[in-house]
Amino acid sequence: MPLQPHMKLISVDDHLIEPPGVWQDRLPVADREAGPRIVETEEGQQVWSYQGKLYPTLGLNAVAGKPREEFGNDPTRYDEMPLGAYDPVARLKDMDVAGVHAEMCFPTFPRFAGTMFLEGEDRGLALRCVQAYNDFLIDEWCAAAPDRYIPMTILPMWDPELSRIEFERTVAKGARAVTFPENPEPLGLPTFHTDHWDPIMAVANETETPICLHFGTSSIRPPHASDAPFAVSVALMGCNSMFTVVDLIFSQLFHKFPKLKVAMSEGSIGWMPYMIRRMEDTWERHRFYTHVNLDVHPVDLFAQHIYGCFIEDEAGLKLRHDIGVNNIMWESDYPHSDSRWPDDRKLLEEAMADIPDDEVHRIVELNARELFHFGADAG
Amino acid sequence: MPLQPHMKLISVDDHLIEPPGVWQDRLPVADREAGPRIVETEEGQQVWSYQGKLYPTLGLNAVAGKPREEFGNDPTRYDEMPLGAYDPVARLKDMDVAGVHAEMCFPTFPRFAGTMFLEGEDRGLALRCVQAYNDFLIDEWCAAAPDRYIPMTILPMWDPELSRIEFERTVAKGARAVTFPENPEPLGLPTFHTDHWDPIMAVANETETPICLHFGTSSIRPPHASDAPFAVSVALMGCNSMFTVVDLIFSQLFHKFPKLKVAMSEGSIGWMPYMIRRMEDTWERHRFYTHVNLDVHPVDLFAQHIYGCFIEDEAGLKLRHDIGVNNIMWESDYPHSDSRWPDDRKLLEEAMADIPDDEVHRIVELNARELFHFGADAG
Repeated sequence: MPLQPHMKLISVDDHLIEPPGVWQDRLPVADREAGPRIVETEEGQQVWSYQGKLYPTLGLNAVAGKPREEFGNDPTRYDEMPLGAYDPVARLKDMDVAGVHAEMCFPTFPRFAGTMFLEGEDRGLALRCVQAYNDFLIDEWCAAAPDRYIPMTILPMWDPELSRIEFERTVAKGARAVTFPENPEPLGLPTFHTDHWDPIMAVANETETPICLHFGTSSIRPPHASDAPFAVSVALMGCNSMFTVVDLIFSQLFHKFPKLKVAMSEGSIGWMPYMIRRMEDTWERHRFYTHVNLDVHPVDLFAQHIYGCFIEDEAGLKLRHDIGVNNIMWESDYPHSDSRWPDDRKLLEEAMADIPDDEVHRIVELNARELFHFGADAG
Repeated sequence: MPLQPHMKLISVDDHLIEPPGVWQDRLPVADREAGPRIVETEEGQQVWSYQGKLYPTLGLNAVAGKPREEFGNDPTRYDEMPLGAYDPVARLKDMDVAGVHAEMCFPTFPRFAGTMFLEGEDRGLALRCVQAYNDFLIDEWCAAAPDRYIPMTILPMWDPELSRIEFERTVAKGARAVTFPENPEPLGLPTFHTDHWDPIMAVANETETPICLHFGTSSIRPPHASDAPFAVSVALMGCNSMFTVVDLIFSQLFHKFPKLKVAMSEGSIGWMPYMIRRMEDTWERHRFYTHVNLDVHPVDLFAQHIYGCFIEDEAGLKLRHDIGVNNIMWESDYPHSDSRWPDDRKLLEEAMADIPDDEVHRIVELNARELFHFGADAG
């Protein structure tokens, strides 16, 4: 039994639904009307209001435990969601049921990379909202069980210098990761090929705080027929992570910031052996005229800087040595529809039945502990 | 030695450069001025002229045998290209040098899927140009060695009924495949999710003539930073084939046309095990609300209808059983920059050293013979 009882599952991609008080409990009184607050619609839905606009993304895809036949409609009220979606203590019980020890949660209303706060005219309010989310995340959500929640924060990314300050502030109070868009350009921001993000990357590099890029956070979807069934879009989402990995590997980022680590979130791993070889082949054959680094092989950059994770991925596990056993982590995706909850541990045990114990331990627990400096001494 | 001397290499993705006479030798006299003809520019380049416009795509990427340090500039004159790029008899010698028995060539000036002839006002001329290319391909190029060239034709795709007629005409005179865009929508044409292409698909289905979808023929490139080095675009091109496979698998095409076979050209195979499982998982979890076929599993549709090919692809060969050994073919890509010419057979032999003989034979020769009904009795 390669997945042994003493090995603790650490999931590196989960999602929390913000409870109503995240901003209302923390913003100055003068900000509370314009800041994020829950509004009841005439149709009986609960939606977020922010700077005068309504956002009906309350329970985005929080369907864990529902029968598959009922997928397709997001919950529109807190009382339609599992309590564990928005309550960190109830979440621990759901984690226990599924055999999951620790989780790292992405935000929902702020969007997975915090890009919601690029919207709205009032940048001062937006900054206070970013700070309030981060304080909630560290002081309330993760504080409910510091050994079971990895704190990942967001940045005021309209301003790299403000981002640097907020990044340093949150790392000082315990943040172990930061979420960032997989490609900033479709959001109207400079690309990873500019120096624009250097203040942020420098903090990540110096404090060894990984940057987590969740698929879909660029706001774009892989191209497909506009009248294709929604299943096409679902199946292709991992391609976004491919676009990002290739963009990063052929950028100057890892040459400028040699300790920078990037985790691809929900992008899966089964395509990595193919893409690593494809990048290597591209580099071997085309490096002389394409203005890329001529000294370091893509395969070595990947090994040093890129991490992937999976829910289920037979191909990726079979070819784990071509990815790097140290570069693979596991994720639950609770409470979204791709989560296997409450069968997480059982299915993972079956999926890893043929993998040596030490490799299983690295993948389910030790890689995440080391990458996120998360209780390594508790391993 | 799994790749044994009696196994003949059949490449299913190569490229020919049209010699100057393809259209001038075949079009009626009145068409010759407006039809495709070679023009010398003041800068000493040879370019195609068609319906009053100049197209500087003469020798697109025809660099086989050049040192890699010289990649990046396409040849601009016939005399800068290897003779085998545009002469079918000289090509045979190049194939012999590399140990390649047979090839299937995509067109260059008409673009890989014949979409050039969507341009221009004169549709009558365009149709005669399509017919002239197909006649050249069958009567001149492939006729130079009918047992070594698989005839693949193009269609007048602005009109599905004209396409049906031309498809039937060319199949009757020996065509064994047709090239088509991987996604017609970015070209301003209806998608694979409509009934628009049924006349073409019906011919493919009834005559068991595979449709070949070369990556890039949709005219789009996978999304990446606009200021990324060109290497990013090169490395990501296989994603186009992923988009297409997922679009097709979740379409109604294979349910309407159960004998339809689709070959993905130059898209490689290493991503297929991942994407097959991803489609299967998407179908298992999300089929109830996404308007896809509820009865047939994606993994079974793939096995019945989709073929891939590779130049070098370690991941794909390792996981060949998860793709289907009967669904994998080999390609040379001569004379483009990804071709290994003249080392094709030598490198393939090394890459397949650990694969059983019978599987090697299927992959390098027998699958192509069966799929394209190409001299199966000569095997």
